[in-house]
Amino acid sequence: MLVGRMTVCGVGLVGGSLALAVRKSGLAREVVGFDRERSNLDFALSHGLISRAADSPAAAAQGAELVVLATPVLAMPKVLAAMAAHLPDGAVVSDTGSVKAWVARKLAPLLRGGMALVPAHPIAGKELGGPAAAEASLFAGRRVIITPCARTSADGLRVVEAVYRSLGAAVEMMDAQTHDELLAHASHLPQIAATALALALGPARVGDKAAFEYGASGLRDMTRLALSQPELWRDVCLTNREPLLRALALYREALDEMQQLIEQGDAPGLAAALARGRRMREQLK
Amino acid sequence: MLVGRMTVCGVGLVGGSLALAVRKSGLAREVVGFDRERSNLDFALSHGLISRAADSPAAAAQGAELVVLATPVLAMPKVLAAMAAHLPDGAVVSDTGSVKAWVARKLAPLLRGGMALVPAHPIAGKELGGPAAAEASLFAGRRVIITPCARTSADGLRVVEAVYRSLGAAVEMMDAQTHDELLAHASHLPQIAATALALALGPARVGDKAAFEYGASGLRDMTRLALSQPELWRDVCLTNREPLLRALALYREALDEMQQLIEQGDAPGLAAALARGRRMREQLK
Repeated sequence: MLVGRMTVCGVGLVGGSLALAVRKSGLAREVVGFDRERSNLDFALSHGLISRAADSPAAAAQGAELVVLATPVLAMPKVLAAMAAHLPDGAVVSDTGSVKAWVARKLAPLLRGGMALVPAHPIAGKELGGPAAAEASLFAGRRVIITPCARTSADGLRVVEAVYRSLGAAVEMMDAQTHDELLAHASHLPQIAATALALALGPARVGDKAAFEYGASGLRDMTRLALSQPELWRDVCLTNREPLLRALALYREALDEMQQLIEQGDAPGLAAALARGRRMREQLK
Repeated sequence: MLVGRMTVCGVGLVGGSLALAVRKSGLAREVVGFDRERSNLDFALSHGLISRAADSPAAAAQGAELVVLATPVLAMPKVLAAMAAHLPDGAVVSDTGSVKAWVARKLAPLLRGGMALVPAHPIAGKELGGPAAAEASLFAGRRVIITPCARTSADGLRVVEAVYRSLGAAVEMMDAQTHDELLAHASHLPQIAATALALALGPARVGDKAAFEYGASGLRDMTRLALSQPELWRDVCLTNREPLLRALALYREALDEMQQLIEQGDAPGLAAALARGRRMREQLK
C-alpha cells in the first residue's frame, strides 16, 4: 500500500481508470471519487471504480493523502481552490492534464504550506470519454510524464511515480515547457487536424451525394479523434496556445509543400515527399 | 461462371485480391496474372492468387475476355497499349483506379473496334500493399463505383457489375467527374493530410527528444495512411489535380478557422467548433 486515502476529482476515462487500477492493485486503502456530474459519480460508485463518492469538494478533501485532479484542465484550479482548506497538511496534489506549465502555474499558489504538487500526464487517452470507458489496464505499457516544479516534494514525487510504475507505466521526468512543446506536436496538433478534416468534409457534397459516405478506413482513421470531448480540447487549446500554434505552423508548411507539388504536377517531387512521409511513419512504434 | 479467361495486370493488394476472389468463387474459368515486378507475379502464382502467370503484356492479352488493370493509374495506358493488339475482339477492359475521368480519357483511344471499357473503382484499399496483403474477402461489404463512358457496352457493364456483386460489393453507377470530386474529398485529401502530418512531425524535436515518440493511438491513426505506396498516390495527385486542390482548399479553410479560434483564445468558439466536428464524425458509419 502506498497511500491511505486517495481522492480522484473527475471520474471520467482517465480519472475513473486510475481510481479502478489503484483499487484493484491495492495501492490505496480507500479511493474516494468526486465529479461535477452526479451521473458519472453514481456510475463510478456502482461499477466499483471508487470505494466512496464525495458530495462536495470539501468532503472529497477530507483526509486525502493523495489528490488527483482529472477534470478538464481549466476546471482544475476551481476544484483545488474549493478543496484546499479541507485537505490534510501533508497532502500531495497531482493531476492528469495534457498541459503542464499552465496547470503548475495555476495550482501552485492554491497549496497550503505543507502540501506538495506533482504535475503528471499519463499519455493514455482514447477518443471515448466518461467512466463507462474506464479500464484498469489503461496505463499498462503507456508513458507517464511527470514535470516537477518548485512545489514538488521528494516524498510526493516518490508516491506519484510509484503509483504509475505499479500500474505498468513508464515514468519519465522533464520540465513542463518541454512537455508542452512535445505534446503540442504529438497530440494536440493531430487533434486539431482531425477536427478540421471533419469540419471540412462534413458539409461537402457533390450533387446529392455526401463526400463523407465515400470514405473507407482511411477517412475513419483520419477523423476518429474528432469524436473526443470538446470541453477537454477546448481547454488544451486555451492553455497551450503558443506551442500549439507553432506545431500548427509546421503542419501548414508541410501542406503548402504538398499543395505546390500537386499544383506543379511534379511527379518526382510528389513521389519523394510521399516516400519521406512513409519513412517517418515507419519510425513510429 | 461469368467469363472464360480473366487477366489481371498488377497483382498487388487490389489486383491480387480480385484475382483470388474470382478464382475462389469460380467466376472465371482461368485467372491470368501479369506484373512488372517478377517477384509479385511469382508470389501470386505460388500462393494461388492466379492460375497462370504471363511473361509479357502480349502473353497476358491472349484470349482474355476480361482484362482488369490494377496498376498505379499512370501505368494503365502503357499496359493497355502493349496489350491492345493481342486482345480478342470482344474483350472487356476494366480497371481499379482511384481516379476515373483521366483513366477513361486515356484508355478509350487505345481500344480496338469491338472492345468495351468499363471504368470501375472498388473502394477497398488499406495502407499495406502488395500481393502478400491480398485477401479474397477484400470486396465484401465494400462499395464499387462504376463510371460508364462512351465506350462502355451493355454486355461489358453487366459482366463487371456481376463480378463485384458476386464478391459481395455494393455496386453504384455515377459519372466520372462526380466520382473524382467525391473521392478527392473522402480519400485523396485524407491521404495528403496524413502525409503532411508525418512530414511535419517526423523531424520535429524538442531538445534531444523526438516529438513523434510522445504520441499515442491518436497520432498513429492520423499518420497510418502515410504508410501507403508513394507511387500509387503520386499518380492520384497527378491525375486528379483540380478536384484534389479544391478539397485541400476546404481543409485549409477549416484549419484557418481553428487557428483563429486558438489565436483569439475564443473558448465558446473552440467548444462549438470541436462539437461540430464531433457531430460530423458521428454521421460517419
